[in-house]
Amino acid sequence: MINIRIEKTATPKTLPSQDNPLNFGTIFTDHMFIMNYDPQNGWNDARVVPYEKICLEPSSMVFHYGQEMFEGLKAYKTGDERILLFRPEKNAQRANNTNKRLCIPEIPVEDFVEAVKTLVKTDEKWVPTKEGTSLYIRPFIIATDPFLGVRPSDTYMFIIILSPVGAYYPEGLNPVRIWIEDEYVRAVKGGIGETKTGGNYVASMKSQVKAHDAGYSQVLWLDGVHRKYIEEVGAMNIFFKINGEVVTPALSGSILPGVTRDTVLELCKAWGVPASEKRISIDEIYEAYENGTLEEVFGTGTAAVISPVGELKWGDKTLIVNDGKIGDFSRKFYDTVTGIQLGNIKDEFGWTVEV
Amino acid sequence: MINIRIEKTATPKTLPSQDNPLNFGTIFTDHMFIMNYDPQNGWNDARVVPYEKICLEPSSMVFHYGQEMFEGLKAYKTGDERILLFRPEKNAQRANNTNKRLCIPEIPVEDFVEAVKTLVKTDEKWVPTKEGTSLYIRPFIIATDPFLGVRPSDTYMFIIILSPVGAYYPEGLNPVRIWIEDEYVRAVKGGIGETKTGGNYVASMKSQVKAHDAGYSQVLWLDGVHRKYIEEVGAMNIFFKINGEVVTPALSGSILPGVTRDTVLELCKAWGVPASEKRISIDEIYEAYENGTLEEVFGTGTAAVISPVGELKWGDKTLIVNDGKIGDFSRKFYDTVTGIQLGNIKDEFGWTVEV
Ligand SMILES: Cc1ncc(COP(=O)(O)O)c(C=O)c1O
Ligand SMILES: Cc1ncc(COP(=O)(O)O)c(C=O)c1O
Repeated sequence: MINIRIEKTATPKTLPSQDNPLNFGTIFTDHMFIMNYDPQNGWNDARVVPYEKICLEPSSMVFHYGQEMFEGLKAYKTGDERILLFRPEKNAQRANNTNKRLCIPEIPVEDFVEAVKTLVKTDEKWVPTKEGTSLYIRPFIIATDPFLGVRPSDTYMFIIILSPVGAYYPEGLNPVRIWIEDEYVRAVKGGIGETKTGGNYVASMKSQVKAHDAGYSQVLWLDGVHRKYIEEVGAMNIFFKINGEVVTPALSGSILPGVTRDTVLELCKAWGVPASEKRISIDEIYEAYENGTLEEVFGTGTAAVISPVGELKWGDKTLIVNDGKIGDFSRKFYDTVTGIQLGNIKDEFGWTVEV
Repeated sequence: MINIRIEKTATPKTLPSQDNPLNFGTIFTDHMFIMNYDPQNGWNDARVVPYEKICLEPSSMVFHYGQEMFEGLKAYKTGDERILLFRPEKNAQRANNTNKRLCIPEIPVEDFVEAVKTLVKTDEKWVPTKEGTSLYIRPFIIATDPFLGVRPSDTYMFIIILSPVGAYYPEGLNPVRIWIEDEYVRAVKGGIGETKTGGNYVASMKSQVKAHDAGYSQVLWLDGVHRKYIEEVGAMNIFFKINGEVVTPALSGSILPGVTRDTVLELCKAWGVPASEKRISIDEIYEAYENGTLEEVFGTGTAAVISPVGELKWGDKTLIVNDGKIGDFSRKFYDTVTGIQLGNIKDEFGWTVEV
């Protein structure tokens, strides 16, 4: 187990008012976690220090060859003032899958979770309490060798920062409008699509800007080979409820294995709702829409838990799902997961971890 | 035209001895160029300053969403002590193609070239003179908004650093052994493969490590859709000479449009050598090898100008090219280009630009 040194800030910031919306990812807490890696010492010098700028050589590999990875999870404050994490070991495991693919040294799952807990504990007064708010946790690793050759770096920094975030839906679960992308591709099997790394996100920006400009909030990606199988949404996995059955694209190697996605599948099992992971073409979805069996569509991710989809735009076709309203399954899933996260519903799955 | 402020270092470093090999990308000069971008001022505050660390918020978008790009070119010292750049406006144009795809603001071509010239001029004593050496120039842009949402950054830094580099081939043009990758994929049409951005390089590392461990120096990528059309090598474009004709993969959207690649094609035109850009499958190459018409294979890139390929490893097949020796066309091309770069051969193409 890692030994974490804690150096507290001498100049704590003022906590943000909970009366203003806490815009996602703009406010950061008093401290951050840092741990270094080098081949001699492995991961070492684990520490919580005051939140501050990081200074790097301009030749640091992260700036040139994209050797960087990140994770995203949240801490919630319960009614009785406990702080809960939701399935943090899932993020730690996914981090290591990313690390393996990107030639970044792995971090023991216990150490990853311990680092998250220690930092959140240090900044516990930053966990907001208003309904729907939480503390977003962003662990990330960057390659720091000052070297311009292309090869895996020998040295790295593992950093965790925290950001109090507001309710994702200020006025309730609002269905979103989604644009189906048929020009650009996010990732392909054999590439890095199943990892959580910068390259996948920068690849998505141009398409996202195009969708925004057309009035859509996110992009739904199709596969890069056949250009017809459904992959995932910008920062969410996607689910369809067709004729009473829940389906989601199988993990084909090019999409991120979402923690929330896994949670939906587990809950379906527990609830006896038929659910499957499979290859789904956009034509099948359109067919279900035409014959009236497309009941619900929703995205899943840590940020919003679920995002009901009210409209899908596919070329010149517009699919209005469930009259543009949130569906019963989506609602039930949202209520259950947020209930467990906030400690209001008994956690029968062992998903919550107290800080 | 940009106005560049110059602030010289008070503590110049000792120049590296030219008797030791100048290992690629490990030594940096006294100064660097920096220019900032924000929506109000556009690109602004262009300056040459002492080479030093850059300090960024840990939430800077470059660390999380891979919004970064780079270029690579070289400066050479001629026998009569002039300093020449080779086709720098090509790099500036390619930089803007990358920028467009990655939602990074473009930089006027003249400003890019002026920035390179001004920095090289400031550090002109760092341009090495020994045969085969040069000053490697690395322009790059990083996204600096302190924000965790996924969208293009509003602010950026454009930085240029310089590194004196040794002869790529200490004992002459050595043919390399290349591994043909059939598991991992570098890029796919619709993605970011034709841009020069970190995400493409981190995606290549795992395969490169596998190839190195098996004794090969680089990887040759196949396309991500059919898994049989030839794309490019790690950091080089690839050419084949088959039955007297020079062929290279067409720019399909997933490979980098190399400046050296273009130079080969231009020289073929000037020399009356038949050359074409087309879709080439690995099977066609194997067929040419079997029937004895595969005369030469070589990679092209700024670092080595050309790399003759002596061996291609494709699954269980080993293709020994031209008895593992450098071919006549490769040699002629290398001699011509390096001759023009060093001012020893008259530049009839207007490729060189004096600093
Ligand atoms: C590309 C992508 N897909 C899916 C997800 C959903 O994953 P999770 O449920 O673990 O947040 C995310 C966000 O984390 C993502 O960035
Ligand atoms: C992926 C890739 N392909 C090709 C090249 C060759 O391009 P150029 O001739 O412009 O150096 C490079 C190197 O710059 C590269 O990184």
